Amino acid sequence: MTITHQDCRALDAQDPLAPLRAHFTLPPGVIYLDGNSLGVLPKATAARVADVVAREWGTDLIKSWNTASWFDLPQRLGNQLAPLIGAGKDEVVCTDSTSINLYKVLSAALNIAREDSPTRKRIVSERSNFPTDLYIAEGLCKERGLELVLVEPEDIAAALTSDVAVLMLTHVNYRTGAMHDMAAITAAAHAQGILCVWDLAHSAGAVPVDLNGAGADFSIGCGYKYLNGGPGAPAFVWVHPRHASRPDLKFMQPLSGWWGHAAPFAFTPDYQPAPGITRYLCGTQPIISLSALQCGLDVFTAAQSLGGMAALRTKSLALTDLFIKLVEERCAGHGLGLATPRDHARRGSQVCLTKDTGAYAIVQALIARGVIGDYRAGSGAASGSGKGNGGTVHKDILRFGFTPLYIGFEDVWNAVEHLRQVLDTAEWQRPEFNQQHAVT
Amino acid sequence: MTITHQDCRALDAQDPLAPLRAHFTLPPGVIYLDGNSLGVLPKATAARVADVVAREWGTDLIKSWNTASWFDLPQRLGNQLAPLIGAGKDEVVCTDSTSINLYKVLSAALNIAREDSPTRKRIVSERSNFPTDLYIAEGLCKERGLELVLVEPEDIAAALTSDVAVLMLTHVNYRTGAMHDMAAITAAAHAQGILCVWDLAHSAGAVPVDLNGAGADFSIGCGYKYLNGGPGAPAFVWVHPRHASRPDLKFMQPLSGWWGHAAPFAFTPDYQPAPGITRYLCGTQPIISLSALQCGLDVFTAAQSLGGMAALRTKSLALTDLFIKLVEERCAGHGLGLATPRDHARRGSQVCLTKDTGAYAIVQALIARGVIGDYRAGSGAASGSGKGNGGTVHKDILRFGFTPLYIGFEDVWNAVEHLRQVLDTAEWQRPEFNQQHAVT
Repeated sequence: MTITHQDCRALDAQDPLAPLRAHFTLPPGVIYLDGNSLGVLPKATAARVADVVAREWGTDLIKSWNTASWFDLPQRLGNQLAPLIGAGKDEVVCTDSTSINLYKVLSAALNIAREDSPTRKRIVSERSNFPTDLYIAEGLCKERGLELVLVEPEDIAAALTSDVAVLMLTHVNYRTGAMHDMAAITAAAHAQGILCVWDLAHSAGAVPVDLNGAGADFSIGCGYKYLNGGPGAPAFVWVHPRHASRPDLKFMQPLSGWWGHAAPFAFTPDYQPAPGITRYLCGTQPIISLSALQCGLDVFTAAQSLGGMAALRTKSLALTDLFIKLVEERCAGHGLGLATPRDHARRGSQVCLTKDTGAYAIVQALIARGVIGDYRAGSGAASGSGKGNGGTVHKDILRFGFTPLYIGFEDVWNAVEHLRQVLDTAEWQRPEFNQQHAVT
Repeated sequence: MTITHQDCRALDAQDPLAPLRAHFTLPPGVIYLDGNSLGVLPKATAARVADVVAREWGTDLIKSWNTASWFDLPQRLGNQLAPLIGAGKDEVVCTDSTSINLYKVLSAALNIAREDSPTRKRIVSERSNFPTDLYIAEGLCKERGLELVLVEPEDIAAALTSDVAVLMLTHVNYRTGAMHDMAAITAAAHAQGILCVWDLAHSAGAVPVDLNGAGADFSIGCGYKYLNGGPGAPAFVWVHPRHASRPDLKFMQPLSGWWGHAAPFAFTPDYQPAPGITRYLCGTQPIISLSALQCGLDVFTAAQSLGGMAALRTKSLALTDLFIKLVEERCAGHGLGLATPRDHARRGSQVCLTKDTGAYAIVQALIARGVIGDYRAGSGAASGSGKGNGGTVHKDILRFGFTPLYIGFEDVWNAVEHLRQVLDTAEWQRPEFNQQHAVT
């Protein structure tokens, strides 16, 4: 039975999470399917930021390091974030950028792995991992005389050999939305004595994550995507307690700045790392941006009483199922493929469509209609099956993120209806949608 | 002839920079002599931040990466800052924290120095350098099998031997306010084939700096002190053009994230550094905090028409001269010493007093009266002469920063009058000012 507009409205009316949308400011006339790139503005943020600027900074000045707990903000936000990713208390800090946090944990993982087994000389990752992760790993390998081995997702298991020190993966792929089985892959890596670093950029706040349950070793992630922390919001870093305080590794992570010191205000000339995750802090943090991130996390705290991440996941899968079904029902015959796995266990909170030609122009035409997704160029190589198997996808991609905090079922209907019109009328072939690619 | 309150008022009336104070929000009843720790709030910042949050983020969302030039913000702010430190166009970026930027440039300096001369195995620095600089250097030395040599300021010249790779100094000492002769020390280091890294945390916006004139190699500094960028504002990094684009060092700095890539949106799996200073960027930046920093820099741009850094320096020296003279005239007999050099060429924009006992309590008593300076504990060892010679100072310190943008001559009078009363009445001996040290 085909789905109707009215069916979608009915789903919204029954949605127990629908009230969460009121926590956000959404621009009028926009269906925002890019929360996987930059989350929207929580309603509380403007007032919070204004208070940090005018009162905490402007009036209270340096006192606020103590009275407004600026010093503890990375730890406080880390504790607020922890339940979303299956981390315990005092295991997470919000700080710096994802790339820098990856440098810290990848360095630490290499230090630990190679302290234990100096013959392990490889980092394994996925060729289609987010590039900055690969750049950081490439630099570390160059510096330490190690080898970065990049494989296709289907070849990860075979690459876990005894000369590998660290497996570094992004949990949900940024291009395809394919999700790895964190527990199974971590167990397979550990069986070979390999440490696991998980990038949760497209997972935290998007899908339930259980770092401790999976026995993961290190993790980092992004504050400005599904966590709605604002443009370039500070990132986060988690380290399993079995690694966090190893006393034999004073410089376990090399960015040994004063915020990670055991006694930063003793002003001693030698570095003594703080216990636990605090040693993953480095320099003074951008307090205004960090405070904005708190408002993003507050919405997840509010969502707890509505079922938390489990309920968000149920809705997310319903949204992406609906989008896939509607695209297949209503946009058939235009050569769209599906890059995102159909299997719920393998799907993040986004749906990526493929198209041989015109993907960029279609995204531009949708944006002109207020349906904001984004485009990711393909490698130009032969594509995979296009059947959503989670394998390698080389084609151009139309990427649509579905944030269950503020996207509803009627939004999905409307988005697909716009897509149908753009395709059926060949609107995307207009010259203005085929200009040179902008940077997005 | 002794100076009177009326004299100070007259100095304010003649001060050509006095109008700059109107660019700032100063809390009523406060004389803020801690701009060397956290600068005050520019009046323009609240509206700018509110606009970034509500319009750039809330309404325009991902479009703002292009339409609001979020991507270029590190470079744009770097170019705005450049004239304050004697840097050229496209030589500076504002990004990350001072500690992280130090890790980048110290790594790069070691890579270059040791590529050219592998036998150079030492970093030389000052024992009383700001601790986070020493912690970063200590970590890098540990990682690379090098040696960190810490000397007293008077012993720097003798430490510049042929086995030294890098000399790492903070231009103005955070405890004493003593300023190094950047040009002379750089020349002495270069004569021995040693590269120089200068930390400008207490210099940028406080004293004229001429990095290119001094032929310096690398520099970093802080956005939240004299630049008034807000709590934890992003820091900056400068690299001399002769080093910035060396084609033989792909990973010249090891934090090789996507913002430093030549084509970040090509999403290629291998790292190709951007030309010039852009390769010193790493991950996505906290746009709200970075935007606030711009308002701090805008005041310096406005100060250009009033004589810029040269005029600010003239006023700064007049303020610190006045403070020293008034303290010596009006607070004699209480055992105060002077840690800051009297010599203008050796003095930053702060004055540090020493006292054998009671320094902490005196600072607390002054804060209770609205005169905000800060306290830095001494090492407990025997002190230097206390005659402001810029040498090692082991005593407890009362630290007062004088920001010529918003501090006036009557402020100096009033601050010293409060200090006189606190000392003459033994007010500082009250129990409430002698509690356990707070973290400030």
